Amino acid sequence: MKDIPAYMLDVGRAARAASRVIAAASSATKTNALLAMAEALDAARGALVEANALDLEAARSDGLAQPLLDRLILDDRTIDRMIEGVREVVALPDPVGAIRGLDYRPSGLQVGRMRVPLGVIGIIYESRPNVTIDAASLCLKSGNACILRGGSEAIRSNQALAACIEQGLVAAELPVGAVHLVQTADRAAVGELLKLTEYVDVLVPRGGKGLIERVATSSIPVIKHLEGVCHVYIDDSADPDMAVAIAVNSKTEKYAVCNALETLLVSAAMAPTVLPVLAARFGQAGVELRGCEKTCAVLPDIGAANEEDWTTEYLGPILAIRTVAGLDEAIEHINTYGSQHTDVIVGSDYANNRRFLKEVDSASVMVNTSTQFADGFEFGLGAEIGISTDKLHVRGPVGLEGLTTEKFVVLGNGEIRHR
Amino acid sequence: MKDIPAYMLDVGRAARAASRVIAAASSATKTNALLAMAEALDAARGALVEANALDLEAARSDGLAQPLLDRLILDDRTIDRMIEGVREVVALPDPVGAIRGLDYRPSGLQVGRMRVPLGVIGIIYESRPNVTIDAASLCLKSGNACILRGGSEAIRSNQALAACIEQGLVAAELPVGAVHLVQTADRAAVGELLKLTEYVDVLVPRGGKGLIERVATSSIPVIKHLEGVCHVYIDDSADPDMAVAIAVNSKTEKYAVCNALETLLVSAAMAPTVLPVLAARFGQAGVELRGCEKTCAVLPDIGAANEEDWTTEYLGPILAIRTVAGLDEAIEHINTYGSQHTDVIVGSDYANNRRFLKEVDSASVMVNTSTQFADGFEFGLGAEIGISTDKLHVRGPVGLEGLTTEKFVVLGNGEIRHR
Repeated sequence: MKDIPAYMLDVGRAARAASRVIAAASSATKTNALLAMAEALDAARGALVEANALDLEAARSDGLAQPLLDRLILDDRTIDRMIEGVREVVALPDPVGAIRGLDYRPSGLQVGRMRVPLGVIGIIYESRPNVTIDAASLCLKSGNACILRGGSEAIRSNQALAACIEQGLVAAELPVGAVHLVQTADRAAVGELLKLTEYVDVLVPRGGKGLIERVATSSIPVIKHLEGVCHVYIDDSADPDMAVAIAVNSKTEKYAVCNALETLLVSAAMAPTVLPVLAARFGQAGVELRGCEKTCAVLPDIGAANEEDWTTEYLGPILAIRTVAGLDEAIEHINTYGSQHTDVIVGSDYANNRRFLKEVDSASVMVNTSTQFADGFEFGLGAEIGISTDKLHVRGPVGLEGLTTEKFVVLGNGEIRHR
Repeated sequence: MKDIPAYMLDVGRAARAASRVIAAASSATKTNALLAMAEALDAARGALVEANALDLEAARSDGLAQPLLDRLILDDRTIDRMIEGVREVVALPDPVGAIRGLDYRPSGLQVGRMRVPLGVIGIIYESRPNVTIDAASLCLKSGNACILRGGSEAIRSNQALAACIEQGLVAAELPVGAVHLVQTADRAAVGELLKLTEYVDVLVPRGGKGLIERVATSSIPVIKHLEGVCHVYIDDSADPDMAVAIAVNSKTEKYAVCNALETLLVSAAMAPTVLPVLAARFGQAGVELRGCEKTCAVLPDIGAANEEDWTTEYLGPILAIRTVAGLDEAIEHINTYGSQHTDVIVGSDYANNRRFLKEVDSASVMVNTSTQFADGFEFGLGAEIGISTDKLHVRGPVGLEGLTTEKFVVLGNGEIRHR
């Protein structure tokens, strides 16, 4: 492709035009498109696997690491999951057009708020081709047009998936511009996408920190998920068995996820009771522990944590542990070093739990449960497009509602204003 | 002041620290601070007028234009209004800490959302010193710390007002860093404020387009109000008398406001009936009309509108008029040329009104009433800090709720996750 700026400008314009149509589309039309998309995926299994084989071959000869190769694979199982995902989105309630709080005002006007699509969403992601289908279905259901920019190593797989999406749109007589997969692997296309301030309403980066930071330089608003430095705080009042079970599950249920525990905080009163049990459990699980001075006094065999450990998202079998005086120090630690993602208190003291919920400034604050529950499905949002660590617009798991906004609707009967 | 970067960094740090305290403050504490602030304003009338006189004198010798001088004045009447404004904020319900939708999930967890402050809000405004008090009271009530940067021409008035705010904070034993007025008129301070990404959660510019565009370059999220190119569309089905009354009120009730009518759209079927009446009424009011070709065919005495008129916010007694085929063309015009602020349909056709509400992509969409009603008080939000033309986070008038966000709260009883 020669003229990438001109190409991306065309993509932006087409998406804006399509966004008007999809925003006004009925629930039934959107459902038809999604169901046709699911059928097209089922019918295209052969073509999908073939396109994917070419991507895999190229990736292997480029020397892509095995974990990245694994994420790139499209096979019958991953295709089944994509189809199931589309059907789950079909089953979610359509958020568009719902009006709330249409109250009468002293002027005689009725004023309420209507939920509406954001418009055009630009999604920039790496490796996993299933994001193409997840993102397209969530955007479609929420009445948004989208511009999808997948990883260059997955471009053939993504093109084959985009063909299925297009079949779905055509079947429902929706404009094909409503979901556009960027057709070039040239990285310059991302730079151009970040400049489409007139045509793109929000950007959603899904990938590593480098990608997210690059996208955040755009003057288009970004729904971003940076890292998850999640905490469990074991309060004086905790039940020791529950505390151990929650800490172990929060760390070990899955390591490479943003809602995994990274720093465990233990109140000084509980440290002698729970730390030895935790050390044994984490030892069995193969988790390396790094403790503050007080923690190392109880567990002399573990390594020392330094300042950097408190802000590190290990995404692996390493856990930092700090012994704190109590609730105040725990809240202070989390608000200072955490990433405002997901934090847990384990405790039975009513006032402490209530203060933790109010004062910890994170997207998800939890009492007596595992950090690993922080996701859209568990929270009842259905499929999620990411977990936002931003504060504005949407915080925590982002589902259909996060891809919409509200406008005011005002119903009158000829009222005019006299100030 | 010598080292402005160091000063602003200190201001940011202090605001972040104070934000934790104010976020956790009880409603009663915040009310005490606000009431003490109102009393301090009342007691400081002499000092306020004196400080203001110095600002006015300097502004006159700098040759500030009369309308700007008028906006700068602090007198008994404007002080009364400020005090009244603070008391109105006291009377509003405290949004902080409210939990909604705490539903049980299949996992046994209860998941809901708690409304919480944004943290630190940076407000950058021009001329009017009353914004100092309005902004401080709204931020305080919503549990946010704020950094206020007023116009350099109002700095003495603002410092006198800030002294009253400080008295309020001290009386309620809240940290004085919770409301910080920038103490230098040097424009470099604004540049430094825009860089405080770690300490400021959102920026709210209030002023001209130049200011707003400058603030929007920050990588801190911005709640911005750009312009209001508002429309009234008179549908085929409109009652002609109602249509005329609404169009005239929307334009003439106040000219220099963002919710004033700037472009009138008239369906071709209604044009011969309403245009002559409107021309007479607008003629009496001294409003200059500029029409499209079809409009000029009915009103041969008015000037011709060009492409630029459709995107112009006149903020004065000029009105652009376009005759459109009907609803489709009206929606198309508004979504193409409008500023997504406030748009009205006048009509009695149920389906047309419903389509207009859904398909016009603006912060406020209205049926059969005046654009001039688009404000926080009329919408029931109480005092507003501005009217957002952004789509993300908050759209339309921004009151206390717009200065807050929601986090997830999760209540468990030892649940752990098995994927």
